Amino acid sequence: MKIGYLGPEATFTHEAAVKYFSENEILQPRMKISDIFYAIASNEIDYGVVPAENSTGGSVSDTLDLFIETDVKIYDQLILEIRQTFLSNAKDIKRIYSKEQSFYQCGKFLRDNYNEAEFITMFSNAAAAERAVKDEHGAAIGPVHLSSKYGLGIVNEFINDKDNNQTKFYIVSNEVRSEIRSKSLILFSVPNESGALLNVLSVLKKHNVNMTKIESRPSKRKNWEYVFIVEFENKVNEEETLVVLNEFKNLCSFYDFLGTY
Amino acid sequence: MKIGYLGPEATFTHEAAVKYFSENEILQPRMKISDIFYAIASNEIDYGVVPAENSTGGSVSDTLDLFIETDVKIYDQLILEIRQTFLSNAKDIKRIYSKEQSFYQCGKFLRDNYNEAEFITMFSNAAAAERAVKDEHGAAIGPVHLSSKYGLGIVNEFINDKDNNQTKFYIVSNEVRSEIRSKSLILFSVPNESGALLNVLSVLKKHNVNMTKIESRPSKRKNWEYVFIVEFENKVNEEETLVVLNEFKNLCSFYDFLGTY
Repeated sequence: MKIGYLGPEATFTHEAAVKYFSENEILQPRMKISDIFYAIASNEIDYGVVPAENSTGGSVSDTLDLFIETDVKIYDQLILEIRQTFLSNAKDIKRIYSKEQSFYQCGKFLRDNYNEAEFITMFSNAAAAERAVKDEHGAAIGPVHLSSKYGLGIVNEFINDKDNNQTKFYIVSNEVRSEIRSKSLILFSVPNESGALLNVLSVLKKHNVNMTKIESRPSKRKNWEYVFIVEFENKVNEEETLVVLNEFKNLCSFYDFLGTY
Repeated sequence: MKIGYLGPEATFTHEAAVKYFSENEILQPRMKISDIFYAIASNEIDYGVVPAENSTGGSVSDTLDLFIETDVKIYDQLILEIRQTFLSNAKDIKRIYSKEQSFYQCGKFLRDNYNEAEFITMFSNAAAAERAVKDEHGAAIGPVHLSSKYGLGIVNEFINDKDNNQTKFYIVSNEVRSEIRSKSLILFSVPNESGALLNVLSVLKKHNVNMTKIESRPSKRKNWEYVFIVEFENKVNEEETLVVLNEFKNLCSFYDFLGTY
């Protein structure tokens, strides 16, 4: 079994991959979220691990857009506690390197302490650490073990704004789980008519389904037209869930069942 | 009258600010979106110009979060056509600097031509150009006039994935327009009860109000709990709009009218 994760090594996504799969599996780092989705679509790998959403920073737009762009599905999800560390060897910090999501998670710390610094977004916290080491005025944000891996001093620990900072990762693959689990995620768009979105959502209300999340992303077909991503709690009765999904689907102009977890 | 915009000079937001306000107004660049919101809140400036949403890249999360964090409102909006240019003096391009939103808008071009390059996100396209000039393997993405301003060669013009690439900017201030215009934007959260969000939205359906957009952002109070941002078309009759808004507000646990445009 081949498993890809958003790399490089020593990132939070790597930690999630190690936690979900056995240590004996071959885990391959990939440099971009899109690399994982396309490797799944072409059967180069069986499963992928990608960040989906942080409890403070919100959804990872790249991941949402790739569900729209490809036929890749969600096989499962995993939630990790995220502790951000401020790492540097510099006396005078002028540039801070990190992932976009890490900047969001530490917004208050950064405004209070480094409001004048330049913030440079990298693809991974590991790449940020590598860059910070080479910059005499550089610092990085990421998991604490980047310190020993890249030889960076620990300036502050637990710098995330919220104590209980969590990230949800999706385990993606070409197939969804066959049994319906506690929640489902669907992707859809609605006909270009006044009231169409509220019409579709009223199916959930009618069946007393609890919608736990709604997101929108640009359709990329027409400006200011959207694709929606809805998460809801499944009915205990699996048959009833399928009735709701079918009624919902019939009102959509595009519909894709992304997975159940 | 003092006006701030997301700077530095020569960015798309600068262009939007010049277009909306008269040339004679004093336009001050600010380095971060949060600087604009806090300068408005403290009455240092009267109006601010910030990017709100791109037709391909989607909403600017920073801007949405700052509406949640502060009491700043929307005074108006402005839509600009955005043409991205690929700028470089390098023979062998290894690093591409730009704003996150510009990367989203040129995803296909970048995958097709520079899939192996490193993508470094900067706070502005102008900062990206400044960095690219100093990097012998660097390139930048941004408005074409960065070429003459920073002495960077034009490698490709119109590299955005969609021909009709537009960005919506908000003119923000401490006050909303007094008269109700064609659309409204509201920010709200719902009680922590099963079905609460669908319940609130059903008010719009009941009054045949057309919801044109829905977004969600983390509440930052409790994990996996959200604040919603809804845009809808106002009723032609202003009184009727106020009735809908009032009924809507009564079902929310938090409600803020962001503006009408």
